[in-house]
Amino acid sequence: MTFAQELAKRANAIRLATAPVEAVRAATFAIADTLGVALAGSSAPYLDGLASALGAAGNHGAASRIGRKGRYSALHAALLNGTAAHALDFDDCSVAMSGHPSAPVVAALLALAEEREASGGAVLEAYLAGVEVEMHLARAVMPHHYDKGWHPTATLGVFGAATASARLLGFDDDQLASTLAVAVSMASGIKSNFGSPVKPLHVGQAAFNGLLAAKTVAHGMTSNVAAFEHTYGFFEVFNGAGTFDPERALEGWDRFEILDPGIAVKQHPCCGSAHSAIDAALSIRKAWGRDVGDAIETIEIWTHERRLAHTNRSMPATGLEAKFSVQFLTAKALLDGMISLGDFDDERFMTPDVKALLPRVVAHSHQEKNEYLGRVRVVMKDGTVLEDSATTELGRNSFDLHASGELERKFLDCTRGHLGEAEARLLFSDILAVQDAPNWLPIIRAIANEKRV
Amino acid sequence: MTFAQELAKRANAIRLATAPVEAVRAATFAIADTLGVALAGSSAPYLDGLASALGAAGNHGAASRIGRKGRYSALHAALLNGTAAHALDFDDCSVAMSGHPSAPVVAALLALAEEREASGGAVLEAYLAGVEVEMHLARAVMPHHYDKGWHPTATLGVFGAATASARLLGFDDDQLASTLAVAVSMASGIKSNFGSPVKPLHVGQAAFNGLLAAKTVAHGMTSNVAAFEHTYGFFEVFNGAGTFDPERALEGWDRFEILDPGIAVKQHPCCGSAHSAIDAALSIRKAWGRDVGDAIETIEIWTHERRLAHTNRSMPATGLEAKFSVQFLTAKALLDGMISLGDFDDERFMTPDVKALLPRVVAHSHQEKNEYLGRVRVVMKDGTVLEDSATTELGRNSFDLHASGELERKFLDCTRGHLGEAEARLLFSDILAVQDAPNWLPIIRAIANEKRV
Repeated sequence: MTFAQELAKRANAIRLATAPVEAVRAATFAIADTLGVALAGSSAPYLDGLASALGAAGNHGAASRIGRKGRYSALHAALLNGTAAHALDFDDCSVAMSGHPSAPVVAALLALAEEREASGGAVLEAYLAGVEVEMHLARAVMPHHYDKGWHPTATLGVFGAATASARLLGFDDDQLASTLAVAVSMASGIKSNFGSPVKPLHVGQAAFNGLLAAKTVAHGMTSNVAAFEHTYGFFEVFNGAGTFDPERALEGWDRFEILDPGIAVKQHPCCGSAHSAIDAALSIRKAWGRDVGDAIETIEIWTHERRLAHTNRSMPATGLEAKFSVQFLTAKALLDGMISLGDFDDERFMTPDVKALLPRVVAHSHQEKNEYLGRVRVVMKDGTVLEDSATTELGRNSFDLHASGELERKFLDCTRGHLGEAEARLLFSDILAVQDAPNWLPIIRAIANEKRV
Repeated sequence: MTFAQELAKRANAIRLATAPVEAVRAATFAIADTLGVALAGSSAPYLDGLASALGAAGNHGAASRIGRKGRYSALHAALLNGTAAHALDFDDCSVAMSGHPSAPVVAALLALAEEREASGGAVLEAYLAGVEVEMHLARAVMPHHYDKGWHPTATLGVFGAATASARLLGFDDDQLASTLAVAVSMASGIKSNFGSPVKPLHVGQAAFNGLLAAKTVAHGMTSNVAAFEHTYGFFEVFNGAGTFDPERALEGWDRFEILDPGIAVKQHPCCGSAHSAIDAALSIRKAWGRDVGDAIETIEIWTHERRLAHTNRSMPATGLEAKFSVQFLTAKALLDGMISLGDFDDERFMTPDVKALLPRVVAHSHQEKNEYLGRVRVVMKDGTVLEDSATTELGRNSFDLHASGELERKFLDCTRGHLGEAEARLLFSDILAVQDAPNWLPIIRAIANEKRV
């Protein structure tokens, strides 16, 4: 059997009925988080332009576009929603994949699921298969794949999207293998466009191409099922001799990558390099136990020199700068107890309390081995000194976030301005119960929020 | 200036008014040939499936699909027509590019030109800019790019399609540079899918992505204009250190790649490895000067061992096998004076005269330095021995083919079954006069041939 056939056999063997309850739960959390983030990202200024460029009319097709009225073709919806899901760089992530596992998979899947009126259980099963494929592929090609310059959310995400789409279409092993082999010819996206809207567009393309690969196979397309291991195949061309190990992608299918190493939900809508300082500040706030208000005398922050390099802004001038200011973010976390999407509005980001505090905030760099270590020391006006540290990488375990209510709080923050709070709470609980939903359609229609725009 | 900006400046400087007459003529021939080949390829069995997969409805948009009724979105038309143009592998080619320069450019261009009702002159100018960009890029990345496993018709063609689209949209240098940088993130297509319909699909994708890149920029998309030379940019990621030279792409813009080294029109609709034997046979037929009919006693053929390896079929059993039988093709050329698309119909390919002759045809391999050398010796029943050789690579100079009438004959052969001969002759001459056409629309509507299907 070829690599694509081996991979297809494993991905097709995933069944909701036999998967661990925790894996299904993790999938549910990830879908909820991705949908919230996609709705928040749907306001990105370039998305309407992208729709116009596509000639994507909203009166044509069966799939919803998140945050906008109308029905689009499934492929157009996948491209637009995938781009929206990554527009804020606030979607879930995986250190093992050096990327964002859910966005490409969910974007392809929700378009196809709406078109086919698939059940919630079918969506969860397809999601699990898609994420397991991209994360297993990561084991075969990382870290070289990322170091070389590929954007794995796109170049591996396309296989996740292809797999999830194929599963929802009920493909047998051969059809799924063909789909993966077609997707080999569609993988694209490199890091030189990071820092531009082309980065989220990569995710839209991965969703689009993965779904297209599956749809072409459904309509009779054939491909070379040895397209991964071929001399001119995915491994040799994208990675190169000596930098990959296909066997690693075929091992370990008795457990779920979504549980171990797991995927992390991004908790703070700002630069990841400041997350550990924010978390340390939140612990200090909790330890203080009462209103922080005017109580703070000074704040000192230590983050790694590589992390501080692009987050050292003592008095940010714009909302975007505030997202990349460890001083602003740490002060904000102490004062408000959370970082919200609304904190970066250009007109209103610099509230009087933060402005008054910032001249007394100092950031230092450290060179410790753990790049993700952040330490914060707060001296209170009454002389109390509170100090704490955190080692947050890019996000947190979704089970912890759900248990503490923070997963729902993030969802409410993301959907604010689109959905009323009661409506958002109801939708969140509907998504968490999606496994038993006979039809996925009401959820996507609710998140697409078509009635508002 | 970045590489994309340098390239954009050069591509934008191409003007029909200052280009050599021969370059404009070569562009005209290439467009005529590509349109004919695309109409012939439009019957490929997977194209309707591809249209269904796209959800591409023919009642939506302003662009024609070649060989089918209706109007499609420009992007859908580009994808379908680009795939059709390469479906038979009969479109023009370039040894320097190791690929097919015109198909991706023409497919993107004709969809956009129809949408905008562009003039014939604007189309020619945009075509020239697109082809010069992809062929100059080839100078920077070849031969390693092809040797490594990329499919240059797709991975360089996307920049040709992007440039041609940008030119037709009237972009300034900055917009064209942005378009090229967006296209960096869309380049895809590798050789492991050669031999499957995914290969022509690559060309459709290149047309689609190049056009999409331009359309997104027209609607406000921004990108990193250093996306080629960046550490994680096109050159490093697709080629790798030491295997490319960007300067080579920026040199030589005082002359036209389309003239030197030129692009070659494929003359025979069959495996390229048999072309030299076919050409030698055609010379022999001409030298004989009268009806070959029953006059042949024996035929001996010599082609290079690497060429004969996959074309050695003394009695082909199917039309596809006949395309890869040097014995069949040489006999056919002697008997009929040409190889036609209709010669490979599964029901009728084995005509009685060829069948009678094949037992007396012998193919030998040679190991001469020139892989493209083919030699044919024919012994006539009257004792005359005629021998000739040819060194055809993949195609012929379009000026020669036009002068001998073979360019038009190929066009008639490609359009047969779609257009009447008189209609096809008229269309061919209309295309050759396209430089003065105020509107490109009637030509694409004629080749799309919508009224027939």
